[in-house]
Amino acid sequence: MDSERFRKQLDFILEIDKEKTILRQTHLTGHGRREDDADHAWHLAVMTWLLSEYANTEIDVSRTMLMVLIHDIVEIDAGDTYAYDKEGKKTESTRENAAADRIFGLLPEDQGALLRSLWDEFNAYETPEARFAHTMDNFQPMLLNNSNGGGDWKEHGIVRSQVEQRNAKTGTGSEEIWKYMQTILDNNVEKGSLGE
Amino acid sequence: MDSERFRKQLDFILEIDKEKTILRQTHLTGHGRREDDADHAWHLAVMTWLLSEYANTEIDVSRTMLMVLIHDIVEIDAGDTYAYDKEGKKTESTRENAAADRIFGLLPEDQGALLRSLWDEFNAYETPEARFAHTMDNFQPMLLNNSNGGGDWKEHGIVRSQVEQRNAKTGTGSEEIWKYMQTILDNNVEKGSLGE
Repeated sequence: MDSERFRKQLDFILEIDKEKTILRQTHLTGHGRREDDADHAWHLAVMTWLLSEYANTEIDVSRTMLMVLIHDIVEIDAGDTYAYDKEGKKTESTRENAAADRIFGLLPEDQGALLRSLWDEFNAYETPEARFAHTMDNFQPMLLNNSNGGGDWKEHGIVRSQVEQRNAKTGTGSEEIWKYMQTILDNNVEKGSLGE
Repeated sequence: MDSERFRKQLDFILEIDKEKTILRQTHLTGHGRREDDADHAWHLAVMTWLLSEYANTEIDVSRTMLMVLIHDIVEIDAGDTYAYDKEGKKTESTRENAAADRIFGLLPEDQGALLRSLWDEFNAYETPEARFAHTMDNFQPMLLNNSNGGGDWKEHGIVRSQVEQRNAKTGTGSEEIWKYMQTILDNNVEKGSLGE
């Protein structure tokens, strides 16, 4: 064992423990507490495995799982920026890039470079894997929110056009899942938890 | 899309959200709150990818990642049984098998059978993947606990022989990691957070 290499791996492993303390705006099912980033990433990884059959084009499932597992690690430094926070969104990319440099930089060079390129791929939103990862990333909070009667939208006064805009490219990962998501929007507009 | 199949997948996805509410005895780094099961599974999956090079025999990394992601899902019904809870351990297997029947049974048959067999494989502790998954499952809480000065052991009055017994097979997944874990035990006995 190369103890210097192992030490770097352990430093990263302990550092990313902090992801469990980053809270999202989404609440757990059963009107539970706010979800943390690690919970969310875990859910996306399982969902990716379960739902990959609905991807528009075949994806490398394992690579996509790893991508979703690490996609929010940068929020340890940059914090979670709510999908509908206009001001926060302006500086999100700068904050997250600096975080990626620092956090993936803790790892041995080969592993750091691989995870960084996977994170860059997620953000570039171009490969089938990145597109499907984003579909999961947008579908999961909608599922939880819908199970809670759309409470997260109601709390923040969100209207349908905002959700549509946020999901402008969700269908590029899976048209079938995006179609289903639109029925969730229909239902929530109908019952008044999402503004028209 | 087969809507009956999709409905079953969504039922499972919403059901496993409850894993985020199962608390373990381990505390997060920085003397944080108790860790939840989904946080833990997320951490194990990333660790599996990072540390697979130390497995005694080469493992299928993706399969092992999926195994650790789902290994605690049964605790939604069966609860978390603390590693050193003698009474709880007696009924753990019966409780967990019933939980596996119900929870994996929510899925379409093909996917339910695959995850169930992966969960059975984890528990049988025989394949290189199951062995390495257990190494991760035992190493991760020790890392967190050690970063907190061994507070979890101290709180429960744990002694070294209990940890050794609990980890009797940890080295069958990775001798190198088990050797490192023993240095953590040495240090914690020395400073009195783990009984001799």
